[in-house]
Amino acid sequence: MLNELRNIKLVIGYDGTDFSGWQRQENSRTIQGEIEYFLSQMTREDILLNGAGRTDAGVHADGMVAHFHTASAIGCDDFLRGLNAMLPGAIRIFSAEEAAPSFHARFSAIGKEYQYEIYIGRIHPPRLRLHTLHVTAALDIHAIRKGLTIITGTHDFSSFENSGSRDKNVWSGRGAVRTIRQALLLEHSIELFSLQFNGDGFLRNMIRNIVGTLIEVGRGKTTPQEFAAILAAKDRTTAGPTAPAHGLWLKKVLY
Amino acid sequence: MLNELRNIKLVIGYDGTDFSGWQRQENSRTIQGEIEYFLSQMTREDILLNGAGRTDAGVHADGMVAHFHTASAIGCDDFLRGLNAMLPGAIRIFSAEEAAPSFHARFSAIGKEYQYEIYIGRIHPPRLRLHTLHVTAALDIHAIRKGLTIITGTHDFSSFENSGSRDKNVWSGRGAVRTIRQALLLEHSIELFSLQFNGDGFLRNMIRNIVGTLIEVGRGKTTPQEFAAILAAKDRTTAGPTAPAHGLWLKKVLY
Repeated sequence: MLNELRNIKLVIGYDGTDFSGWQRQENSRTIQGEIEYFLSQMTREDILLNGAGRTDAGVHADGMVAHFHTASAIGCDDFLRGLNAMLPGAIRIFSAEEAAPSFHARFSAIGKEYQYEIYIGRIHPPRLRLHTLHVTAALDIHAIRKGLTIITGTHDFSSFENSGSRDKNVWSGRGAVRTIRQALLLEHSIELFSLQFNGDGFLRNMIRNIVGTLIEVGRGKTTPQEFAAILAAKDRTTAGPTAPAHGLWLKKVLY
Repeated sequence: MLNELRNIKLVIGYDGTDFSGWQRQENSRTIQGEIEYFLSQMTREDILLNGAGRTDAGVHADGMVAHFHTASAIGCDDFLRGLNAMLPGAIRIFSAEEAAPSFHARFSAIGKEYQYEIYIGRIHPPRLRLHTLHVTAALDIHAIRKGLTIITGTHDFSSFENSGSRDKNVWSGRGAVRTIRQALLLEHSIELFSLQFNGDGFLRNMIRNIVGTLIEVGRGKTTPQEFAAILAAKDRTTAGPTAPAHGLWLKKVLY
């Protein structure tokens, strides 16, 4: 047991606006890079922070989960306080706790919940500009809900996958097949709604591609029937544009 | 009538984070400066934008009002669209309309409504960090409400006025006497509340000084009775600290 390292689980929130996404990069500011830097300072170890997934530049999170191994004796609450004292306010550690040795933020996850926020009033309030997508075209909410019903369940989501981006090692065997357990349109006010996706896993840019295409459905450019045909085509070239990163929130990782 | 200029009224929202306040300054980015710059470009006139008041660096607005005179024939909706197309997303024009020649954003106003937002959860969510004050100390909401009752009505607010800042020309005659028509604590969730102030006018930093002192009341450092004595003392040195700018929102100007 002497060589057994502690395994610490972090729940993390961030405003992705000023970061080049989650994943560490040489000359860019990233969430993983910032947290690893301060964890390494605290522990005087070379800490590797394993996230449950990667979020792209500009994507936000309320509930990213990550784990790291350490020989340090620093208490979990001291990790929480120390990191929050050193990190910029755009990154917050919501919790830090001891996890089982076998816990892996990515491989132990059984799913994730994302939310894509859309503001449909005429003028985009400055307060919401970095965290919601502004759509000024009239949207048929009923048609979007039909689209959400169509993608719910187990499907091959090739039509909504960005090419060349799948990690074959991890997802080997199931290709582009994923299960969306629940896809809901939540109306927060007359001018603000969000699309919530709960699934066992998501392909790269899958949600942003689905949302971009659902906005076309809402605008009447694509019918719900055509949307069903796009899904069935398993061909990325049939789908609509990729919705911008700044409306997307990783809400929860499910274990 | 040939020389009569049009009078245009704007309702403006802004995220004050990256600006040195409302008022135009030589080498700083300000709300007034940005809007005047683009109005002058559109009209090819030297436009002076008169705001209903000045907000300090970092203070936000949902409903600032301003007016300007112009000989231009540009329609109000074109001003709205043009400005919103050129201005940064941190500043939005919510409406532009023709006003009576006598309308003056500042002198016609009969009052203003401000809101100060306070987040009391343990960890400040990144999304709220620039728009709410984070207070981690336990706050006695009941005591703060008592304080709000105490300042409601017509009082000499010298204790909450920043020295040397009053505009004698405008407020001559009434000194530091102001009327707060309504002061409410609004609970938005378990972790977020705001203090709303509706009054006929506010001295410089008055709300931030009141809020800073009310937080002391909430923390139990100052009793409601002591708060009443601070108000009665008419002496700035008796009050608590000035609350930070970033929790403050100008919500409405009343006419």
